[in-house]
Formats: sequence, structure tokens, C-alpha cells
Amino acid sequence: MEKNELKIDELGEFGFIETIKDHCHYSLNRLIQGIGDDCAVIGPYQDRVFLLTTDMLLEDIHFILGKIEPEHLGQKIIAVNLSDIAAMGGTPLHGVISIAIPKSMNVASIHAVYNGMKEMCRRYGLNIIGGDTCASPHKLMVNVALMGEAPEDEVLYRKGAKPGDKIYVTGTLGDSAGGLKLVTEEVSAPESVATILIKAHNLPVPLIETGRTVARSKLASAMIDLSDGLVSDLRHICDASGVGARIFHHSIPISDEIQSLAQMNNLDPYELGLYGGEDYRLLITVPSENCGRFESLLEKDTSCHIYEVGEITMQKGIRMVMADGQEEDLSLRGYDHFIEY
Amino acid sequence: MEKNELKIDELGEFGFIETIKDHCHYSLNRLIQGIGDDCAVIGPYQDRVFLLTTDMLLEDIHFILGKIEPEHLGQKIIAVNLSDIAAMGGTPLHGVISIAIPKSMNVASIHAVYNGMKEMCRRYGLNIIGGDTCASPHKLMVNVALMGEAPEDEVLYRKGAKPGDKIYVTGTLGDSAGGLKLVTEEVSAPESVATILIKAHNLPVPLIETGRTVARSKLASAMIDLSDGLVSDLRHICDASGVGARIFHHSIPISDEIQSLAQMNNLDPYELGLYGGEDYRLLITVPSENCGRFESLLEKDTSCHIYEVGEITMQKGIRMVMADGQEEDLSLRGYDHFIEY
Repeated sequence: MEKNELKIDELGEFGFIETIKDHCHYSLNRLIQGIGDDCAVIGPYQDRVFLLTTDMLLEDIHFILGKIEPEHLGQKIIAVNLSDIAAMGGTPLHGVISIAIPKSMNVASIHAVYNGMKEMCRRYGLNIIGGDTCASPHKLMVNVALMGEAPEDEVLYRKGAKPGDKIYVTGTLGDSAGGLKLVTEEVSAPESVATILIKAHNLPVPLIETGRTVARSKLASAMIDLSDGLVSDLRHICDASGVGARIFHHSIPISDEIQSLAQMNNLDPYELGLYGGEDYRLLITVPSENCGRFESLLEKDTSCHIYEVGEITMQKGIRMVMADGQEEDLSLRGYDHFIEY
Repeated sequence: MEKNELKIDELGEFGFIETIKDHCHYSLNRLIQGIGDDCAVIGPYQDRVFLLTTDMLLEDIHFILGKIEPEHLGQKIIAVNLSDIAAMGGTPLHGVISIAIPKSMNVASIHAVYNGMKEMCRRYGLNIIGGDTCASPHKLMVNVALMGEAPEDEVLYRKGAKPGDKIYVTGTLGDSAGGLKLVTEEVSAPESVATILIKAHNLPVPLIETGRTVARSKLASAMIDLSDGLVSDLRHICDASGVGARIFHHSIPISDEIQSLAQMNNLDPYELGLYGGEDYRLLITVPSENCGRFESLLEKDTSCHIYEVGEITMQKGIRMVMADGQEEDLSLRGYDHFIEY
């Protein structure tokens, strides 16, 4: 095939991003981190740096109208952006919102989306300071760009992981992916299970306080939020840090709800835990000498429970250690917006 | 009609924005200007402030693929955002780009869009430091959020206009609207005319240097960029400043190309000049005692030519003075994304 006939879904999201990363910086003055982390980092301005991030939610790609309350949709778009600020150890400051609204849409529904956004902003002390409002030819689209801040010496990047560091996650994995399967009616579950998993999918909790606690402690070496799935996001950490990782299969934290869902629908719960996206937990690497203090510190954090799931290795690639000690090389799987698996 | 059945296209863009402006600010710390100007303004950090703005371009709303070169589309999305920085008197620093790409789209076309964006960034010293890349269910969408900076005491807002101030624009008006009519084949023109007008529509020039010159001089009282059309944007200045304005019909600067286009297609060129959007000229109000110095200063600016088009009045509303001295009250017309005229 001719190069200029290559379609975007053949190259994939991360492949595409690699091809556009060059020639993006025209002034290195006060640019600490460009493309390639959860947030860009600029500064310092006195002893602080600013964080910038952007994320959009598209109808029929990220959500289905009628399957999520408009107010929850508003909460979610702010939450997923806040999660990127959390992953750097930052505090949110200001946001600008672009919204493309189908002309036939009810004003009441759009106000409900805004009420959800404002509720989330209120909870996290974030200002909405601008935006762009347009008619959309077909679908609803919401884009948020957030600015946050952090003390210069506390920011956590993807690139700091070192061989021997332990890998922690701040909660169970796969719940959001299970919720998505319920929303799209691929699977079914009793209401008590479905309610919890759909909530995990629709109303992710941005771990701003946890991120700040970790950053302030200076006990961790790297951090990322789990938006694409454990394997995919751990690969981002490994690529940025020039290392590999080993995950322990029996340590992947799976909720009781995902266990039930998997059993009833003949799914592998570990598939959801390893590859399911949108959990918005934090993945944190910690040098082994800091692990005791790190665990004690995080025990006091009532918003999450931490699990050690593996360790960083000198050897590149991501491998999973099974119960029998066998190692399995994890393929290059993970969520990609353009490539389907 | 029940309130909750009201559709967004019945309320209109500006009507809608009015309904969401409340409860957007949760911390007033270092928030100088929220929703309601070309950029939000935060700070000061030492003696500088930061500017934040966002603007999107949607396929089939703002552009038609096949009617604009992908590279020009890339240039335009950066240009329209830069124009908002220019309108505050700022210098651009960093941008984050969200793009929703139809799965079937050629990688070569998307790279051309990025090449256009990067070319514009290179010209204006702007860094691309992050973004979000997604598959789109239907149409191409590009959103840019920009951060700029300015010395705290030089920023120009919409709200500074005073009765007696003269109103200037930095170039001819209606060229972009004429170009749009040619692109959508509503009208026709000889190639020499069409080329110039379509270029005005597809490749607007952000007046960063002019904006800086005006801001640095401290001779102006208010500034806005002409994105929605002269009457509409002047109304933004008047509303923010609590004043009215009088425009002189014979002073509206109309290019030779728009004169030809209008004559050949039986259009009123002043309709295009008054209500046509996307010229991205600057509209500047200047206290009369500063006008001499202001005009001398701007004469040295080779990137634009200034025209005095009217004056700010104590009396609210916008009126047009015709050649015979009669005044005409300009209706509430102007570009609105949801309401068609």
C-alpha cells in the first residue's frame, strides 16, 4: 500500500502520536515536559510549575446518550481531566470547556451536563474560566482543557521508574470495563452488581488528594493514571523510563463485583483487570527502600486502598508471572482508539 | 412550550452562554477575568498574567473537507486561537490539541493538518505541548486550547470602552464572509477575486504583533478580535463596557474584491462588512486625546491598515449613521451558531 493511502485506523492512536511528536517545540524557555506525560509541565514560576492537560468525550465513542445521565456525563468529563492532574501530583486551578451541541438537543439536557461539570469543579476547587460553544452537525462533543499547579520539586513524571521499584495501584481494576460491558448490554448482572460497576464506569473518582499525598511524600519514582488499562499504562511508564516490568497474576486486584460478572458471563476477570480502560486509579512506582513508609502513608488515605501488583525490571517488555511461576510475555495489547482487538 | 422542551437552537449561542455563566468560579485567588472576554486572565505571577483561550473547528460547521486544503485547515485552527491572544495584547506560549479523526481518514491528510498547525506555531513561537487523539464516529473535529502571557498592566479587555472613544478596525471587513460564499458556491467571481477572498476565509492572519503594539502603547481603552462580525463583536465591547456605539456607514472599509463580488452577484457589500464573521481583524477603541499618537504608531505597522469606523456613545445600542445623516438602529443581528437569520 502506498504510504499516503495509509488509514488512521491502521496506524493506531499511539503510532499516530509518535508520528506527530517532532517539531512541536519552538521555544524551550520554561518548558519542562511537552507531549508524552499525563500533563505538560511549564515553569518554574517562582517555586511552582503549571500543568496543562486536555481530554474530550465524544458521543458514540466515549458515551451513549440515553445510557448515561447528562449530569453524570458532565461529572465524568471533568473527572477524567482531573485524573491527569492527579497523576502528576498537582492541584487543579482553571478549565476551559468546548462543547459542540446538536441543534435539536434540549437546553435542559445541556444544562444538566453543565450542572454535572460545575458540581465536580466545586468539589475540587476548579474554576471554569472560558470556552467555545458551537452547533454540532451530528453528535455531542465536550472537550476540557485544564490548568493545574504543583511545587516544582514534587511533580511526578512517567519517566522516573527504576529497576527494583515496586508497582502499586490504588484500587481494584476492570470495574469500569465491566460497567461498559453492562452499559452496552454485552453482558448482564444482578442489579446490585450492575449498579456498582456502571457507577465505576460513569462516575470515576479523580484521586487529586491521593496524588498530592504521594507527590508531597517524595517516596515515589513515577506515577500515571490508569485510563487505557493496566498493561497499556504500565507500558507508558516503562517506555518513558527505559525499563520493563513484571506483574504478578495473583496480585491483580479484582473486585467481588467483577468476579461475579465474570463468573455469570463466562469472562476472564483478569482480562478486564489487565486490559480494561477508564478505571482512573493511579499506578505508582516506589523504590523498595521507601515501600514501608509509602504503604503506611497511603493506609491513612480513606479514598483508596493500595495493592502491590509487580515490580520494575531492567529487562524491557512487560511479563506476567503466573501462580506456577511461569512467565508470560504480555502482547502489545491495550486500548487504542483506532485499532480494535 | 415547557421550559425543559426548549431546544438549543431556540436559545442561541449567546443566550445559552448567559445561562451557564453563573457558579463557574470556586476560587477567586488570582482570577482576573473569567468567561466574557477573548481570553481568560489569571495571575499576576510576578508582573505577568497568563491568558487562556479555546476554539474548535468542526467539519461541516466551520469547514468542508475538500473545500479547504488540510494544511490550511491546520493553519486556521491555530490562527483563530492566536487571534484571541492578540485581542488581549498577549504573546502566545503553549497549546494543547484535541483531534477527533474519522477512522477511514488518510494518515497523509491528518499529517497535513498537523503540518499546517506546526507551521503556524513555528511562525508565532508557540509550542504544542499535549493533546488528545480519538477516533470520531463521523466528522473531523479539532480543538485547540492556548496559553499566552502579557505584562499585567498592558492587557486590554472588552470592558474599557468609554463614551467619546473612537472605534478603529485593522483592515477591510467582509472578505472572509465573501470567501465563504464562494467556497459554498452561493456566488461566483473571477479567479483573481475569488483567490483573494477564499484566502481571507481559509488563512486568516492572527495580529499578534499588532495586538502587542497596541497593548504596549497603553493608548487604547478596549480591544476585541472580529470573529463574529463587526456589529456582533462591537456589541460585546458595548455590553462589557456599559456603553453604546455609532458606526459611520461610509467609513466601513470594504475591499475592492468585495465590491466586485457584490456588484456581480447583486449583494450589499455593507451587509458583508457589518455582519460577516471570521475576518479576525482587531477592533480597538481609543480615547480621542490618544487618537493622533495611536494613528501614527499603527501607521508603522506593516501587517495592517487601520480605519476609523465610529465612536462609543453614552446612549446604549448600536446605531449606523448613513450618508444623509439619518441614524439607523442596528438590529440584534450577527453570527450565532444556533440561530439562523
